Amino acid sequence: MINRLIKEIKTKEAPIVVGLDPMLKFIPSHILKEGFDRYGENLKGAAEAIFLFNQKIVDAVYDLIPAVKPQIAMYEQFGIPGMEAFERTVKYCKEKGLVVIGDIKRGDIGSTSEAYAVGHLGKVTIGNNSFYGFDEDFVTVNPYLGTDGVKPFMDICATEKKGIFVLVKTSNPSSGEFQDRLVDNRPLYELVGEQVAKWGEELMGDSYSYVGAVVGATYPEQGKVLRKIMPKTFILVPGYGAQGGKGADLVHFFNDDGLGAIINSSRGIIAAYKQEKYQKFKEANFFEASRAAVLDMKEDIKQALENR
Amino acid sequence: MINRLIKEIKTKEAPIVVGLDPMLKFIPSHILKEGFDRYGENLKGAAEAIFLFNQKIVDAVYDLIPAVKPQIAMYEQFGIPGMEAFERTVKYCKEKGLVVIGDIKRGDIGSTSEAYAVGHLGKVTIGNNSFYGFDEDFVTVNPYLGTDGVKPFMDICATEKKGIFVLVKTSNPSSGEFQDRLVDNRPLYELVGEQVAKWGEELMGDSYSYVGAVVGATYPEQGKVLRKIMPKTFILVPGYGAQGGKGADLVHFFNDDGLGAIINSSRGIIAAYKQEKYQKFKEANFFEASRAAVLDMKEDIKQALENR
Repeated sequence: MINRLIKEIKTKEAPIVVGLDPMLKFIPSHILKEGFDRYGENLKGAAEAIFLFNQKIVDAVYDLIPAVKPQIAMYEQFGIPGMEAFERTVKYCKEKGLVVIGDIKRGDIGSTSEAYAVGHLGKVTIGNNSFYGFDEDFVTVNPYLGTDGVKPFMDICATEKKGIFVLVKTSNPSSGEFQDRLVDNRPLYELVGEQVAKWGEELMGDSYSYVGAVVGATYPEQGKVLRKIMPKTFILVPGYGAQGGKGADLVHFFNDDGLGAIINSSRGIIAAYKQEKYQKFKEANFFEASRAAVLDMKEDIKQALENR
Repeated sequence: MINRLIKEIKTKEAPIVVGLDPMLKFIPSHILKEGFDRYGENLKGAAEAIFLFNQKIVDAVYDLIPAVKPQIAMYEQFGIPGMEAFERTVKYCKEKGLVVIGDIKRGDIGSTSEAYAVGHLGKVTIGNNSFYGFDEDFVTVNPYLGTDGVKPFMDICATEKKGIFVLVKTSNPSSGEFQDRLVDNRPLYELVGEQVAKWGEELMGDSYSYVGAVVGATYPEQGKVLRKIMPKTFILVPGYGAQGGKGADLVHFFNDDGLGAIINSSRGIIAAYKQEKYQKFKEANFFEASRAAVLDMKEDIKQALENR
């Protein structure tokens, strides 16, 4: 799947991923109404509106991008109907030829991580048959429990030819609280990065590993160091746009081959119509604002990479 | 909810929690058949069997224990039907008067953690109404992202009078890989423990905080130190039984008031009928084996506390 992701990035000339993290406040009122009219002003109606919203955005941008990253928490908060909207979103995006990165940040002791891996990347065996659960192409994984929390994901990745992105340095303001603490005079995130590179060696694609890393766009200096520590690791970079990251900050996340990173933007794309810059599209054409925002993001990153 | 948990622990004289982590291999064939007969040998049939299995065990032990801890991964691996079985299990256990600790180990950047907190502990607002999602009483939280990944859970806990248990030192063999690394000559888990105690001060119940910690039974020495670092923190202790922890190892997780810890056992209870010790109950009466195992566990811990 890492080979396919890289191929799609090259074909579409876009090392970017759109985060499908639909909060209700992002959803135009006519879409909300459509969901509520179908199922009522309840969990099911809201989940329907979320799926309709995603669908419109995906239809408007799928030809421009290699991948999407639905954040499962934004669905999980709507209970079972929300999880159904997540499942439908994953399926719909795959039908449109997109690589789907499930942003699930799971991680637990061995047998439990195995269950998460089975449910999100692999198949669960029931009697003589086996069944996919949520069936994403990649998922994000939390490393706090160490190797035996990560290995079960790698085992399923090996079977399914899928991949993971392990949290190394997250984009949020307080990420340094534990991740930056010095261990042998080096921040913890560097040790985690080294471990990710080591795990990655066991599961190589053609030029990059099936084991990737998450490093926030909001920490470009740390990204520069981590790029060197993990040369064969694809880096998923959240925090572009709404969280403050800019194209020029991102060049060091890439290798000299122009690859090695994929930049995520969520509300900067899906709620673009709320920005002054894209107001001309109006709420009714919110998905066209999203398309314009994707084009602008591609250009911003392209320029930054050319000027480095 | 921490006050209620403590009250239940005192009433039932049982600082224990039963982990409802039903793997298919634990489920007796007649229960599996019942699920498959209803919905087929598929995700839905398996999820039904899981719920039926849980129900029988809960019916057999609910009068002995204060709380249960369903591990969501074991349900999530069966996709949407699995999540439905999780939701039904939570609801059923609450109807039986049990405190429900959702073992979900979520944790993300602020806005995303908020969505998880809303979905598992709080209510999501839709139009003029609000709705509970999975509605557990407590959940487990991963601290790797720092304060702004944990605070949103605390905010919802304050509103809902619910609680969290933050991972400090996990029970698995490789937990030391990052958690034991020395920062200023002290292992990282101690710093996390200190931070948990600090968060906890902001959200106190009568004698213990709404913010608890997870410390594995498999690391009794570390538990001893953490008990002192976090005096007002309730510690959820997994790893008893199948993972190797014994009653005598656990005394230092408790304060002198005999409180401050709740010990989890999962397969040691729910799959007790597979142990030689409880073979006499036979597979058909698996739930009676579970009841016997709960009684033995209570006695083991009681003895250990009396002999300390």
